[in-house]
Amino acid sequence: MPQLPSGVTPAVFADAVKAMQSVVGAQWVFTSDPDVALYRDAYSLFHDEPEERVASAAVAPQSVEEVQAVVRICNARGIPLYPISTGRNLGYGGAAPVYSGSVVLDLKRMNRILSVNEGDCSCLVEPGVSYFDMYKHLRATGSKLWLDVPDPGWGSMIGNALDSGGGYTAAPYRGHFEAQCGIEAVLADGEVLRTGMGAMPGSQTWQQYRMGIGPCLDGLFRQSSLGIVTKMGFWLFPQPEAHLSCSVDLFRFADIEPLIDLVNELEYGNIFNGMPSVSSPVLTRGGGMMFAEIPAEEEVDRLVRETGQPAWRFSVSFYGPQKVIRAQWDYVQERFAKQFEGAKFRDGQFTNFPLDEVAIEKAPKARFGIPSLEIFAVGSRSPNNPEPSHGHIWFSAIIPRSGKGLVEANRVMRQACARLDIPLFMFSPAVTCWTRSFVLFAAVRVSNDPAVNKRLRESVREVIGICAQHGWGEYRCPPAFQDAVMNSYSFNDNILRRVNERIKDALDPNGILSVGRYGVWPKRLREGRGA
Amino acid sequence: MPQLPSGVTPAVFADAVKAMQSVVGAQWVFTSDPDVALYRDAYSLFHDEPEERVASAAVAPQSVEEVQAVVRICNARGIPLYPISTGRNLGYGGAAPVYSGSVVLDLKRMNRILSVNEGDCSCLVEPGVSYFDMYKHLRATGSKLWLDVPDPGWGSMIGNALDSGGGYTAAPYRGHFEAQCGIEAVLADGEVLRTGMGAMPGSQTWQQYRMGIGPCLDGLFRQSSLGIVTKMGFWLFPQPEAHLSCSVDLFRFADIEPLIDLVNELEYGNIFNGMPSVSSPVLTRGGGMMFAEIPAEEEVDRLVRETGQPAWRFSVSFYGPQKVIRAQWDYVQERFAKQFEGAKFRDGQFTNFPLDEVAIEKAPKARFGIPSLEIFAVGSRSPNNPEPSHGHIWFSAIIPRSGKGLVEANRVMRQACARLDIPLFMFSPAVTCWTRSFVLFAAVRVSNDPAVNKRLRESVREVIGICAQHGWGEYRCPPAFQDAVMNSYSFNDNILRRVNERIKDALDPNGILSVGRYGVWPKRLREGRGA
Repeated sequence: MPQLPSGVTPAVFADAVKAMQSVVGAQWVFTSDPDVALYRDAYSLFHDEPEERVASAAVAPQSVEEVQAVVRICNARGIPLYPISTGRNLGYGGAAPVYSGSVVLDLKRMNRILSVNEGDCSCLVEPGVSYFDMYKHLRATGSKLWLDVPDPGWGSMIGNALDSGGGYTAAPYRGHFEAQCGIEAVLADGEVLRTGMGAMPGSQTWQQYRMGIGPCLDGLFRQSSLGIVTKMGFWLFPQPEAHLSCSVDLFRFADIEPLIDLVNELEYGNIFNGMPSVSSPVLTRGGGMMFAEIPAEEEVDRLVRETGQPAWRFSVSFYGPQKVIRAQWDYVQERFAKQFEGAKFRDGQFTNFPLDEVAIEKAPKARFGIPSLEIFAVGSRSPNNPEPSHGHIWFSAIIPRSGKGLVEANRVMRQACARLDIPLFMFSPAVTCWTRSFVLFAAVRVSNDPAVNKRLRESVREVIGICAQHGWGEYRCPPAFQDAVMNSYSFNDNILRRVNERIKDALDPNGILSVGRYGVWPKRLREGRGA
Repeated sequence: MPQLPSGVTPAVFADAVKAMQSVVGAQWVFTSDPDVALYRDAYSLFHDEPEERVASAAVAPQSVEEVQAVVRICNARGIPLYPISTGRNLGYGGAAPVYSGSVVLDLKRMNRILSVNEGDCSCLVEPGVSYFDMYKHLRATGSKLWLDVPDPGWGSMIGNALDSGGGYTAAPYRGHFEAQCGIEAVLADGEVLRTGMGAMPGSQTWQQYRMGIGPCLDGLFRQSSLGIVTKMGFWLFPQPEAHLSCSVDLFRFADIEPLIDLVNELEYGNIFNGMPSVSSPVLTRGGGMMFAEIPAEEEVDRLVRETGQPAWRFSVSFYGPQKVIRAQWDYVQERFAKQFEGAKFRDGQFTNFPLDEVAIEKAPKARFGIPSLEIFAVGSRSPNNPEPSHGHIWFSAIIPRSGKGLVEANRVMRQACARLDIPLFMFSPAVTCWTRSFVLFAAVRVSNDPAVNKRLRESVREVIGICAQHGWGEYRCPPAFQDAVMNSYSFNDNILRRVNERIKDALDPNGILSVGRYGVWPKRLREGRGA
């Protein structure tokens, strides 16, 4: 039998299991070691150590009513429940609970696409609906709608949105929580809440207007321990006629500041709608990602002169009709040519949609809203990668969307990583899944050696602290660091966490839901939380 | 002396006044009848009746620290506080509290523009900053940024956003709460909370990323009684090079359904960024607003044949470079020509920005982000309007963004208004301040005859009920109807309100802030709330 939740006797636990079995059927309550092991986080930095966060059991209901019944069973007995949608949140914790001993509430069987509205370009889904599921449905029905997808397509639309994940298509759709419209959640006492217009019975506009009347509660369910989201609406992107990806090369270090300002003006002025990115070909020898620490201005300019490589490359993409894209790209070039001496432009090739089967195979999947698992090829064994890793965890800090901020973040982080010897395999400081901010993404390779993992954990904590000193906060992190990151949001004696915990106590007084998630702990466990 | 809050003795109140005077200075605490009368709602449907919601006093602090001190004084004594920014929320309650006897916390003196960031197109302001203030600041500094403004420009940016107000420029900026990024609020116990990245001391990205870590709390402060917002960030629109407003006329009743679907596809696909509207020239004899009930399909088609007037007119506008707008408008015409036989197009004239002083005078102000008070000319005495009204209240229901929904909402509402004899002076069922939904706006004229106002109140309540039966909810309303509207969001025994009240009790246990706002009441007053 796996680890029981603290304070719950074997008898009470057995009674709860029996009660849950009677609700969902015995075959959907998992208590054997091999079954429960499936909910371990394959990428845990505590792998096989005592601190690894593991479930006591798992239960897979297939309806809202069953979820309510399971919640009531656990609430009455003080048994912690950890809801997951499909549990694919790799690099951020996978399917494992934040608090060991929790029963994982696996929502994979609730996988109905409840509606797709072609007229207003929206959908309503259950948590078990994966990106693959929705994509197949849209294709099978001849839909004109696109889905924005993250790198691996096996994840849940709802799960990814709730963790604040993002994708690669047009701006209003890339931030998956930002694109949500309407939530149904089961609360800790088993009651069902619908947010926004869904709070009106027979609502005609649940997926059309987000806020309803009074306070807007949707945000409470993001990275949260306040409820179990059982339905969520999303706004979908009408299939564009075409896509174009182009780039602009600039040749002076000092261009970075006006470059980012102009990118901001153009994006916020609706001139392009694809995801912008900025790289430094001269420092990365033409590679798209930024592996190198950015040296001093004179050094960069010297390298540019010697190699002829650009100091900066702005990659821009457009989704829309060819005619409109041409005008937008022309305008982008005009603005850059006017402001930057020697700017060079590289045209891309138009891709027209819909794609045929052959084109789909070759396509840059996520950029065209096509779910796949191609990203896993990055870490798999190959001639160039003879020793594939044991997984990775993500480090994801929000950094300023300015030239100065970008350069500073690169230098500070590069120096920290070099000093701490953190083996990064990717480090791209100027991407943005959301409008208005850049995210510094770094992947930290997990080891199978506990000593190495221990050092990595200490290093990541140190980097969290260094970032906080510079005013850069993580927007998302694995359970192992959620307390540390929440601690770093420390304005006014951590009032953010204190307010979250007051709301937690009000809505989940027994403290059973998603215990400890993102650093919010129920009253009875608050003393023992991590630093 | 004006009405004291219930349960507060004159001695305790006098002591509170004295304490507030010592914090803000005696001249900034208002207790005389004429001073307090300035906080009455000039457009109240209870004008001069015993039920009119009136303040007991008002206090005007000038800093966050003073707000904290005032809140602590009131919290210790159970005195209700009703924060207003500039108090210009006419038609939705003005400066008057929802709960009579509240002390109005007037934030007009906190009117600093804390920052305008030209690089990332954002700003951070205090609640007393009006649209005029920000507009003047942007012009004086030669800013390249536009402000989205509502009809009257004297209101507060923060106050308007917190009530979920909207304007007229490009989509991501028109919804003022949607365009906010970062909140500082004083809670009922006097503590200061910062949301999003603002919760990190020295944050570099408070106005760049909204959500920070864990649950996103911003929505809690919308139409809320949970805190006093003392700072708020906004995303601003980079000044476009030009604007173009055009229209498409269609000549068959049955076109309405595919028309709205195509409008949705074009807007959500980023083909236009101005506010779309749909009218019926044949029914309104060319007028822009929809005064008439839409008759049966055959009748509309017969009128179209007889008069040659279009059944539907879609007005579309674009903000951007001329070259891009031309391509976008060309594409819109192509799509309509392909799908609708006999569609007729009307080109507008480009307006280039910035405007000179002469052009500003003549400009359609709000569409170009220019604050004004021109809207008040609508109701003022004139040859066409010899009897100006005593004000109006707004009725603002979210209706489906579909042809069928639009026609049904028109018919149901028109019939209800005719039966109830509600004198509407404007009724435009197909406008949208936000993306993704239509709002049915109606203005109900207030009378100076209490008997007429009584009948109006009853009629509005009946219309709220009729709308709810059809699944159409109001997103905003005056205090007189906030309980009724919140009641209509009745899913699962009004769980929306019950959850709001559990959060209210957790964050404001003494129930002093914005008592009753949008139907959320503190524990001690919950029994007596309105129906």
